[in-house]
Amino acid sequence: MKLNMNKKVDFATEEIAHRIRSKFDSKGILALNLISSPGSGKTTLLERTIEGYKGQYNVAVIEGDPETNRDARRLERLQIPVAMINTSGTGASCHLSPYQVEQAVEELPLEELQLVFIENVGNLVCPAAYDLGEHVKVLLFSVPEGCDKPGKYPLAFRVSNLVIINKMDLAPYCDFDLEALKKDALAVNPKLEFIIMSLKTGDGLQEWFAWIEKKLKKARKKH
Amino acid sequence: MKLNMNKKVDFATEEIAHRIRSKFDSKGILALNLISSPGSGKTTLLERTIEGYKGQYNVAVIEGDPETNRDARRLERLQIPVAMINTSGTGASCHLSPYQVEQAVEELPLEELQLVFIENVGNLVCPAAYDLGEHVKVLLFSVPEGCDKPGKYPLAFRVSNLVIINKMDLAPYCDFDLEALKKDALAVNPKLEFIIMSLKTGDGLQEWFAWIEKKLKKARKKH
Repeated sequence: MKLNMNKKVDFATEEIAHRIRSKFDSKGILALNLISSPGSGKTTLLERTIEGYKGQYNVAVIEGDPETNRDARRLERLQIPVAMINTSGTGASCHLSPYQVEQAVEELPLEELQLVFIENVGNLVCPAAYDLGEHVKVLLFSVPEGCDKPGKYPLAFRVSNLVIINKMDLAPYCDFDLEALKKDALAVNPKLEFIIMSLKTGDGLQEWFAWIEKKLKKARKKH
Repeated sequence: MKLNMNKKVDFATEEIAHRIRSKFDSKGILALNLISSPGSGKTTLLERTIEGYKGQYNVAVIEGDPETNRDARRLERLQIPVAMINTSGTGASCHLSPYQVEQAVEELPLEELQLVFIENVGNLVCPAAYDLGEHVKVLLFSVPEGCDKPGKYPLAFRVSNLVIINKMDLAPYCDFDLEALKKDALAVNPKLEFIIMSLKTGDGLQEWFAWIEKKLKKARKKH
């Protein structure tokens, strides 16, 4: 009985994700779902991205957090629309669900937007299992987390389009083997792309912007 | 209807946790539940702890991982009993449940043991919500994760007895404010204890062993 219930829910979530994506497509919006462990740098990456696109693209963020609105407040300072979702008390506080994202999308001024980022709850397990109606999943990984993560959290690497390897400035202090990490990640998902980044030094940000541009062009062609 | 189901399950899990703890108590075993983000150093901490107690205490580990047995294999090299639980495919792959732990405990040679470590799935959200029959919850936090975590993942800090702040050797490169972190954590849980650690340099390990000894004495008094 429990299994049947899960199946029903999964079917429903797929439908909702499809509906969300169609809505984005109809406006030529590119939607990106950011997944990472706690503290990998998702909110900082978003701050830099929003600052970088100021005056060029209108960006909004759907922000998932278990209990607080700290990240949402950090982003609202940049004067963009932020739809906040507190997952705690929903029975599944460890990830955003398409149900929640669909409600959040209703709050956004879609006519004015080109980019929507979904900042998922900091967790490498369950967020990887949900299609939230995004066009691409971006896995933000940070050097101190260790090179064994593609093997240990394979689903997150399997479903992502891009892995950003952040905090590269810490590599000299962390016994970090970039080639081993890439090899393990590609074994799980041969189509993965990588960007090496340090949000502290700014390395990799231009490459990130170029990657987004490429995806945004595709989204606009559909429009 | 969904809510009622959850309530039933919660009631059942509490009972199971109680049953597990009684079993440990009857043998004078101390059980510790380790919670952290991916890559904070749980398995490395266990390796050092098992090595440190070699010839003094018999240690076993209940090891939770979404898909692989990499951590379990790391620990089995130390020739201790390891009960492996793969959470993937269970419908809740992001944490260990008391159901799973009770089955794992059946596999352990309890008569010979003094310490049982439960290495939870790397995740700060859901593992904090489950009593697995342990005596103490230990939150392993690593410096690069950032000082805002007690505010963002308050439940994990609220339910823990001890926070180990690991990778302290990286603090000079991470804009890390130890006092701010402690203050925020104590605001959530005024009874929290802290150990500052670097598994790279070995700093803090003696303090960790002393903390365990203190708790183990209590567990043996109950026996």
